[in-house]
Amino acid sequence: MQKILRVDMTERRAAYEDVPEKYRQLGGRWLTSSIVCDEVPAMCHPLGPNNKVVFAPGIVTGTASPTSSRISVGGKSPLTGTIKESNAGAAFSQKLARLGIKAIVVEEQPKETGKFWGLRITKDGVTFEPADGWTGKGLSEVFPDLYQQYGGMPKVGIMGIGVAGEMRMAAAGVCFNDLKGRPSRYSGRGGMGAVLGSKGLKFIVVDGTDAPGVEIANKELFDQGRNKLVEALRSHDLTKPKGALNTYGSIVLVKIINEAGALPTRNFREGRFKGATKIAGEAFFEGNKERLGKEVYNHACSPGCIIQCSNTWHRPDGTEHTSCIEYESAWALGANCEVDNLDDIAELNQLCNDYGLDTIEIGGSLAVAMESGVASFGDGKRAIELLHEIGKGTPLGRILGNGALATGKAFGVIRVPHVKGQTMSAYDPRAIKGIGMTYAVSTMGADHTSGYTIAPEILGVSGKVDQFDVNKADLVRTFQYATAFIDSTGHCLFITFAILDIPQGFEGVMEECNGVLGTQWTMDDVGKIGEKIINMERTFNKTAGFTEAHDRLPEFMRHESLPPHNVVWDVPDEQLDKVLG
Amino acid sequence: MQKILRVDMTERRAAYEDVPEKYRQLGGRWLTSSIVCDEVPAMCHPLGPNNKVVFAPGIVTGTASPTSSRISVGGKSPLTGTIKESNAGAAFSQKLARLGIKAIVVEEQPKETGKFWGLRITKDGVTFEPADGWTGKGLSEVFPDLYQQYGGMPKVGIMGIGVAGEMRMAAAGVCFNDLKGRPSRYSGRGGMGAVLGSKGLKFIVVDGTDAPGVEIANKELFDQGRNKLVEALRSHDLTKPKGALNTYGSIVLVKIINEAGALPTRNFREGRFKGATKIAGEAFFEGNKERLGKEVYNHACSPGCIIQCSNTWHRPDGTEHTSCIEYESAWALGANCEVDNLDDIAELNQLCNDYGLDTIEIGGSLAVAMESGVASFGDGKRAIELLHEIGKGTPLGRILGNGALATGKAFGVIRVPHVKGQTMSAYDPRAIKGIGMTYAVSTMGADHTSGYTIAPEILGVSGKVDQFDVNKADLVRTFQYATAFIDSTGHCLFITFAILDIPQGFEGVMEECNGVLGTQWTMDDVGKIGEKIINMERTFNKTAGFTEAHDRLPEFMRHESLPPHNVVWDVPDEQLDKVLG
Repeated sequence: MQKILRVDMTERRAAYEDVPEKYRQLGGRWLTSSIVCDEVPAMCHPLGPNNKVVFAPGIVTGTASPTSSRISVGGKSPLTGTIKESNAGAAFSQKLARLGIKAIVVEEQPKETGKFWGLRITKDGVTFEPADGWTGKGLSEVFPDLYQQYGGMPKVGIMGIGVAGEMRMAAAGVCFNDLKGRPSRYSGRGGMGAVLGSKGLKFIVVDGTDAPGVEIANKELFDQGRNKLVEALRSHDLTKPKGALNTYGSIVLVKIINEAGALPTRNFREGRFKGATKIAGEAFFEGNKERLGKEVYNHACSPGCIIQCSNTWHRPDGTEHTSCIEYESAWALGANCEVDNLDDIAELNQLCNDYGLDTIEIGGSLAVAMESGVASFGDGKRAIELLHEIGKGTPLGRILGNGALATGKAFGVIRVPHVKGQTMSAYDPRAIKGIGMTYAVSTMGADHTSGYTIAPEILGVSGKVDQFDVNKADLVRTFQYATAFIDSTGHCLFITFAILDIPQGFEGVMEECNGVLGTQWTMDDVGKIGEKIINMERTFNKTAGFTEAHDRLPEFMRHESLPPHNVVWDVPDEQLDKVLG
Repeated sequence: MQKILRVDMTERRAAYEDVPEKYRQLGGRWLTSSIVCDEVPAMCHPLGPNNKVVFAPGIVTGTASPTSSRISVGGKSPLTGTIKESNAGAAFSQKLARLGIKAIVVEEQPKETGKFWGLRITKDGVTFEPADGWTGKGLSEVFPDLYQQYGGMPKVGIMGIGVAGEMRMAAAGVCFNDLKGRPSRYSGRGGMGAVLGSKGLKFIVVDGTDAPGVEIANKELFDQGRNKLVEALRSHDLTKPKGALNTYGSIVLVKIINEAGALPTRNFREGRFKGATKIAGEAFFEGNKERLGKEVYNHACSPGCIIQCSNTWHRPDGTEHTSCIEYESAWALGANCEVDNLDDIAELNQLCNDYGLDTIEIGGSLAVAMESGVASFGDGKRAIELLHEIGKGTPLGRILGNGALATGKAFGVIRVPHVKGQTMSAYDPRAIKGIGMTYAVSTMGADHTSGYTIAPEILGVSGKVDQFDVNKADLVRTFQYATAFIDSTGHCLFITFAILDIPQGFEGVMEECNGVLGTQWTMDDVGKIGEKIINMERTFNKTAGFTEAHDRLPEFMRHESLPPHNVVWDVPDEQLDKVLG
């Protein structure tokens, strides 16, 4: 019997509730956004008592379905002021699902400010644990401690916030453990870590021992679907074992996007980075090989993943430096700051993991700070110092920790590549129009994961379209709807490479969902469900004061042209307004 | 022959243009807002090349009309993102008007960043002057230097920005000289000093020598109107010589608003301040008397003012400390920070004048910083240190210099009393509903000068209404329309005390305007013109992305009740939406 766990941080009360009928078929983003829309006043202050943080595993999370351990984290974002869903792959999600917990809703705030608590969830109950011993500490200290206290790997899954979240910084993410127990898997974007900080919740440990598991309505259908998806993932070049993602990780994209002239460099001044080969997936693979004396393929972030794209960088002496350096992180902390040294990037990445920060937003902050003269472009050592400022919560650190737009405002910098206050990710929209349209109209602020049109625009997945073509309203809409659906299943977005190219794979996803829920969704329902989710999110945003005026890229991109293609942002506003209407 | 002076800061070109027919009857706010709406893209970045700063004297400015030397400064605000008009009383305005300059439009930006220029305007032409010698310097050093260089008082009028404006801080105001040449008269609100900073314009000196004067279409009618207004100002208790404003300055309000339980204290936690009597107008008057051994009445900020409400505070040794401490400043830097020492307030006020800052916004920043623990409430000495941080442009200073909302964001403080990013002024809206409605719906962000309903709600001017009554949509609308009109005439808003109570005085204002312009406006036109101005401004804001969701007070005011009346903000949203429709 599934249930919703409601956690009141004022009264320190945690209680299970029945799942309302209307939520029965929902999971992941569909469920977090539904609960947020139903329960959070759109006009509330994101760090005030009326905001909530909702955790929800996906529809098939906790089953034997491959690559399906995403945990959605939803609420109103302190970074953007919009609704927010950000998800990560983590065993934490599977444990919740197997315990029958469809969602955790964290609400209210402690009366005592500066006091933090933890939550411990087992089959037998939920308890509040004082977090005093871990308050003010980095996650690389907190997670091992929590394992010692509450049971080790793989029994226990952990969610935690770093000091950035405690300090309620808008770039604070929500961290989960990976398969080695490292604090490395992030629902990074949108500052949900700050919201948890405002609620005084430092961590959740979930013990999956003797969990009953996920009920499956039609086991046969589920297994059939599962097999189709496994087959698709195992055969696609990007997702198969020793394929591109397993070998290099998402960082494989550095070379590809650089060649496309769309790798934002020096705070989005250029589309090609001279140092790109030094921070590319290939250099990463070779660097590890040299330092360890053997080829290292990547690992899964969570149990049951076939793609296994999570990498680990090692120091010259062969010890582990950080895991994982995603493409977005290598770009944000590297190319965008003109830093071309993987060791510096690894240190920055590790500090983000430790302090509890979104690497993308922080890379944006650093680049804008470099633009302002607080640091020099290319100076990785100075960037590392700046990360420590954030960790210490100095005034400079608080500026940076609140994101690129806050940094721009503090230093009077107008070249801030953001939408709705969230910094853009690793694709310059002037050179790849579809992803720019996604940034513009996404309900989440600039977010490539809202609709990864890079697949057809650059990677040739599900066909190939011209990266410079501006007539992409239909493409962008289709991708956003499909993504909202995938984000609700619990699957990692990376399965889309395989299922878009291999129709049987997508069929498999539908059969898995129908198998678990007992529904009879067809491929048509993907778009319908996605549309429903996004319309709901847009209604929230509209009530919060967002209009089509906010569905725009920053002014400077219309005027400043981007080398090497020397292109400006030239998608007409009418085209943007056609995407979601 | 009137003309518009257009100043291109990229090309460093200044050229006169004919006044388009549609602007012929316009002045002050009506003209600045019209030019901004016609020429500035609502979606532009306030600190980018497409924003403009417009200076405009009022319709009767430069004539013998009393208390009519306001200079309107307009543009898109970097503090609020809305359209902005902020006005000050200054001889500068009269000199422009007498030279036939209906408006100055400053546009574009220098190619070289960090380079500043001045503009010198005489009857014979306009020249650009290098400002290198004054860049980075405080205005109390700059203004005397400029007088030495370009001719003294009363020949020359000066506009300047301080280091806050150079650093493009959103709380940077635009400063004008007073009758002693002091940098003390501010178009403070909304950060127009930062926009001038972004344009590299440090100062304008205008030499009024041999100015032809303002053309008056019907001299007889004008004189008749002028005499009526003079008579009204000379007879009303608030505005007459040795009346309340001339004796105490606007600071006379401390005691009155404190008694009404609406003096925001300790960052809007309470409506009464224990130290109120120590910072009230009466204490100010007595303090000066004690230190100087005589009674000191106030002076005019600009030639031709009858009210003469500008005060000067003196040190224990009798030397001048600062001029002028307005009610809003004494409150912002005093009660709101629980500082009850007039010498500390004077020092803070003087630093704002010197660095070029809006005292209201900075008081808001300080109070929020105190709320965060960066300083303690009541610690005036620490507040002075914080002002120096702003002047030095340290990271902490940059946070504070960007206003209360930026300060709250940096330190995770949600109790920020603002609307549209502009901090509220010296009236707690929970205890005086009409002014709260004005804060909410004003096109300018929280701004008491958008419609000073305090007149009937507290002062008994133009009748008396219950301060707690929430049904004030009509009152608030009427005041906003009338204010937009008055802001266009060039008159100081303080004349309204007299002309609302003495109908002949208002008649006089209309006759003055008709006399100058040759129009035949009636009292009906006040509302019509005001409505036209405000609708135009609202259209700009709407295009910039503002909706009724932004016409709201902060959430905490609906939940936290304000002593001593223990009232929350209980004006229904529908009532707010009824004000301007």
